[in-house]
Amino acid sequence: MTASSQPPAPDAASDKHLKDLIAYGERSKYVTSIRVPVAERTSPDEFGMTFHVLCPLQDLVGNITPSSLHFIGTHRGSIVPDIDPRDYRLLIHGMVDRPLEFTLEDLKRFPSVSRVHFIECAGNHAKPEHKTVQQTHGLTSCAEWTGVPLPLLLKEVGVQKGASWVVAEGSEEVKGAGSFRIAKAMDDCIVAYGQNGEPIRPQQGYPVRLVVPGYEGIYNTKWLRRIKAVDRFYMTYNDYGHIQSDPKAAALSFQWGPKSVITFPSGGQHLPGPGFYEISGLAWSGGGAIRRVEVSCDGGQTWKDAELRGEAHRMAHVRFGMDWKWTGGECVLQSRCIDEIGQVQPSTADFAKFFNKPPDYYKTRHVPGLDNVIQPWRVASDGSVHNAI
Amino acid sequence: MTASSQPPAPDAASDKHLKDLIAYGERSKYVTSIRVPVAERTSPDEFGMTFHVLCPLQDLVGNITPSSLHFIGTHRGSIVPDIDPRDYRLLIHGMVDRPLEFTLEDLKRFPSVSRVHFIECAGNHAKPEHKTVQQTHGLTSCAEWTGVPLPLLLKEVGVQKGASWVVAEGSEEVKGAGSFRIAKAMDDCIVAYGQNGEPIRPQQGYPVRLVVPGYEGIYNTKWLRRIKAVDRFYMTYNDYGHIQSDPKAAALSFQWGPKSVITFPSGGQHLPGPGFYEISGLAWSGGGAIRRVEVSCDGGQTWKDAELRGEAHRMAHVRFGMDWKWTGGECVLQSRCIDEIGQVQPSTADFAKFFNKPPDYYKTRHVPGLDNVIQPWRVASDGSVHNAI
Repeated sequence: MTASSQPPAPDAASDKHLKDLIAYGERSKYVTSIRVPVAERTSPDEFGMTFHVLCPLQDLVGNITPSSLHFIGTHRGSIVPDIDPRDYRLLIHGMVDRPLEFTLEDLKRFPSVSRVHFIECAGNHAKPEHKTVQQTHGLTSCAEWTGVPLPLLLKEVGVQKGASWVVAEGSEEVKGAGSFRIAKAMDDCIVAYGQNGEPIRPQQGYPVRLVVPGYEGIYNTKWLRRIKAVDRFYMTYNDYGHIQSDPKAAALSFQWGPKSVITFPSGGQHLPGPGFYEISGLAWSGGGAIRRVEVSCDGGQTWKDAELRGEAHRMAHVRFGMDWKWTGGECVLQSRCIDEIGQVQPSTADFAKFFNKPPDYYKTRHVPGLDNVIQPWRVASDGSVHNAI
Repeated sequence: MTASSQPPAPDAASDKHLKDLIAYGERSKYVTSIRVPVAERTSPDEFGMTFHVLCPLQDLVGNITPSSLHFIGTHRGSIVPDIDPRDYRLLIHGMVDRPLEFTLEDLKRFPSVSRVHFIECAGNHAKPEHKTVQQTHGLTSCAEWTGVPLPLLLKEVGVQKGASWVVAEGSEEVKGAGSFRIAKAMDDCIVAYGQNGEPIRPQQGYPVRLVVPGYEGIYNTKWLRRIKAVDRFYMTYNDYGHIQSDPKAAALSFQWGPKSVITFPSGGQHLPGPGFYEISGLAWSGGGAIRRVEVSCDGGQTWKDAELRGEAHRMAHVRFGMDWKWTGGECVLQSRCIDEIGQVQPSTADFAKFFNKPPDYYKTRHVPGLDNVIQPWRVASDGSVHNAI
C-alpha cells in the first residue's frame, strides 16, 4: 500500500471486490434470507442489541444451518466479546488435582471430534400470534462442531472424588455461567473451536464455546473461559429460567424432548396452485437420534411416515420429506417425531394430561418447561399458509 | 430512506453494520484464512480472473468445507454467470419421450435429497515445488448438497431405449458441457440447488449445478441449463482432459480413486516443540465411503490405524486423526486410505508398477490420470514442515 489521499478509481474498487471474492466467497445477490430479532426481547444495552435473533428456518435446505444464519441468544450484554485468540485462556479448576490453563493452541493439540449437533434456546416458544416458522421455531440451529471432548480435559486435570457438578463460565459481562451435572460433562460435551469447518463465529462464541448436546441453549456457554468442578448445584445468572415452583415443570427443563416442525409449507408461504409438492421439515431430540417422523395432512386424524433426507445424527437436526399432492382444499399439516429412546413428540393435549388439566388447557398458551409441542399449519384454499395454533 | 446528499454519520454507519451482522453474520476479524489462485493458471480474460482457486485445507477443521472457501474451477470465461433465479430454466431433452423445461420453483417441488459429497478438480496435482497442502491438494472441497435426484427427473421425461450417454451443459460462455454414461446419471447424481443449508453459492453454480458423486470436478456442471440424453459419447470443450493416447491412463480418468492427505502438520506449518500433537487430515474416494486410514511417521516403513473423526459418507471427505508424540527428531509423515470396495491409495511406486516403469519413475513428476498418490511431509528437527515429494 502506498500513502495516497486519492480515492481508489472505480476499476480499482471493482478489482478489490473481485480479489475479495476469490479470497472468500459471498452468497448470491438474489439470496436475501436474513435473521430477524425477536420483537418482544430487544436489549436495554447501549448498542440497541436484541437478546435473541431468529434463524430463517423457512429458507434452509438440508441439515446444516449456515453459520451466518445460526440463531443468536445473547447473555444480556454487548453481543460479542472481542477476544484475541492469542490472549485466549481456558481455566479448568475447582475440585481437581491439577488446575490447568489452556491456550487455544494447547486445545488444538488435543485429539478432536467433529459432531453435528443442534443448539436450541429454551425461549423457543411458538405462540398463536406468530406468523412464520422463523418466529415460532427460529431459536434452533444445527452445525458441525469440532473441538476437544470435555471428558479428555477433565481427565487431564484429574477430577476429585465428590465433585458432582460443573460450572461453565463465559467472557461476556454477566459471565454466562451455567451449572450441570458432572455425569453430562463426562459424557458427550465438546470444548469446541470449529463450526461448519472453520473457526466458531463471533456470535456463536469465538474462539471457544461449550457444546452440551441436547441440553437447552443456555448451557452451551459461549466465549468459554472457565470450567469449575464443584460438589453442588451453583445458582448462576443463567439459571433464572430454571426456578420453577412446579417440580413437574422443572423436570421438563435441561434436556430437549423430541421436536419437529414443517418448514415447507409453513406460515407466510404461498402455494401457487394444486398439484405435487414435497412437504419438508426438521426433526431433532435431546434424547438422541430421530428414528421416525410422521406427517398428518388432516389436522392429526391420520398420519403417514415421512422419509429422513439425511443422516440422523444424535442430538442433531435431520431433514424429513414427504410426497404430497395438494387438491386445493383447506387442510392442516403437522409433523411429529419419535427418537431413539422411544420418546414421542407431544400434542398440547398430551401436555394437559401430564399436568392434569382439561385437554384444551394449553391449546393457545405456553406449555410449562421446554416447548416441543406439535406445530400445525393451515393451508387455505387460496394457497396461503397460516399458523394454526 | 430519505433522499439526502449527506454522508451517514459514523453512528449510523455503525448501526448499519450491527444490523447487517444481526441479519447475516460474519467470521471473526482474527480469522484470515483465504483461498488463493493457482499461480500457473491465470486467466486470459478481461476480468483478470484465474481458472482455479485453491481451498485452504490447512486451516479447515471437521468434514465440511465452508462455502466461502470451497475451491473454484472455472470454465474459461467470466467467473460467475449472473442468473436471475426467476429466469432460470433447466431443459432435459434429446432421446426422451417428453422434453421438459423446469423452473427453479418446479425443481423445488420435487422430492429432494441432502448428501455430503466431495468435488475435486482433475487438476489437483501435487508437485515437488509446492510448499503447502493448499497448493498440493487445494482443488478439492466437500459440502452438503441438496437437490432433486437426477434419476427422478429422467423418469419424468422418459428416457428412450438406446439412450446411453447424457450431455450436461452449463451457462458460461463455453457451456461447460460434459458427457457421461447414462448408468451414472440413473444412479446417484443430484440436480442441486442447496449447498451447506443455503442456496448454492454463485462461484459453485447458482442457482443450480449438477453433482456427479466421485467423478472428477468438471462433470459437476455449474449453472446447469441443459441435459441431453444421447446414444453416444459427445466430445465437448470439457473433454480436453480425457484425450489420452494411453488407454491405461485414460482408464484412470473420470472417477477418483481413494485419496488422503495430512493437513496438520503440513507444509509451511511449524511445530513449537516436542510433545503431544494430533495428526489430522482428510480422506475421500470416488469408489464410496472410506473404511480405513493409516498413518506412517517414518516415511512409510510402518503404518498405524488413524481414527475417523466424523461420519464416513460415500464419496465425501472424512476427517481422520491420530495421537502422535513428536520427539523432536526429523521424520516423514504420510497417510493412505482404503475405501469400501477395497481400493488402496497408491504410492508412486505402485503407479510405476502399473505402467511397467522403474520404481522411481514417477517420484518427482505427474502421474498419469487423476493424482491420488500418497503425500509425504517432512518434519525437520526445528519443527518446520516441508513437502517431501
